[in-house]
Amino acid sequence: MANLGPSIDQLMAALRCLPGVGPKSAQRMTFHLLERNRDGATHLAAALQQALSQVQHCTRCRILSETELCQRCADEQRQQDKLCIVEMPSDVLAIEQATHYKGQYFVLSGHLSPLDGIGPDALGIPQLIDLFDNSVISEVILATNPTVEGEATAHYIAQLAQQRTIKVTRLAHGIPLGGELEYVDSGTLSHAFAGRELL
Amino acid sequence: MANLGPSIDQLMAALRCLPGVGPKSAQRMTFHLLERNRDGATHLAAALQQALSQVQHCTRCRILSETELCQRCADEQRQQDKLCIVEMPSDVLAIEQATHYKGQYFVLSGHLSPLDGIGPDALGIPQLIDLFDNSVISEVILATNPTVEGEATAHYIAQLAQQRTIKVTRLAHGIPLGGELEYVDSGTLSHAFAGRELL
Repeated sequence: MANLGPSIDQLMAALRCLPGVGPKSAQRMTFHLLERNRDGATHLAAALQQALSQVQHCTRCRILSETELCQRCADEQRQQDKLCIVEMPSDVLAIEQATHYKGQYFVLSGHLSPLDGIGPDALGIPQLIDLFDNSVISEVILATNPTVEGEATAHYIAQLAQQRTIKVTRLAHGIPLGGELEYVDSGTLSHAFAGRELL
Repeated sequence: MANLGPSIDQLMAALRCLPGVGPKSAQRMTFHLLERNRDGATHLAAALQQALSQVQHCTRCRILSETELCQRCADEQRQQDKLCIVEMPSDVLAIEQATHYKGQYFVLSGHLSPLDGIGPDALGIPQLIDLFDNSVISEVILATNPTVEGEATAHYIAQLAQQRTIKVTRLAHGIPLGGELEYVDSGTLSHAFAGRELL
């Protein structure tokens, strides 16, 4: 702590709740806000409070939303029978930006991690089963992260869907576009080689 | 913008007032705060408001302070006749941590930069002249940054002090400790070579 007084020290400590911000960055941010950008700091405090009071989760897809149903869930133009399951809200944005997918989403807000006490309930799995049972879904697209936990979560959800005879797909694995073969990890390369496609 | 609703978009925009935070980091921070750390966000909003209302500048040395005179200026144990002039509050902390200096400070909050409209008044030079004239100062230590603007600012202040026959010193230039000679820039190396010291 810089010992400049309790308010300054508290602000430095509070800024460390931001991801990727350590003591040095927090100090730099504190001085920047208080020395050079008090308007920005005022605005940030107000935006935080506004978002905290207004933003909840969409009751259907669990993405962050200010309305009970998010914009996408409320949009009747979107395909109702495709459901893409992702770990984080940012994954929805990434897919929306990169693809032409116009179906529904479901945000788990994490992955199964029994050691951290994150089980099916924390991921909204009961709500997902309810969707499986009570809406007409022709395809579940699993788009969890390609990590061990993400794969395990995908496997768990795939079983739930298959028990209900819903078609389940998974994002394709392979070498990323623009990468150099030499730097692709061996697991990915082996997967891409085994899954080679006919031209 | 992620188009998740006005409060979320506004929070993402507001977070960009933090130094080093671009659109991607702001999005990550927003999701982190709203999904995983609402307590931290509440705390941050309160800390911002508290600091904005409480923190002003020390009337003597211009560092951020919650009291009229900062802790260091109010401390009568410190040497009153040495004055170290720095650009930023963080420089004071760096010097306090690294050295045994127990004198006074003066924080310019920047450097002379006529093109950006930053002249002597914005740096508190009138206040500094007042200190030169109305307190007993035996040594002014110039610790502005070793940049073109920092050197120009130091030169300007050195002249003001020398007109009043106050001794002026400057932090030594040379090769940094632990560096490799090969990677030291040529200006620094030439300076260090010319200023070599007798062992």
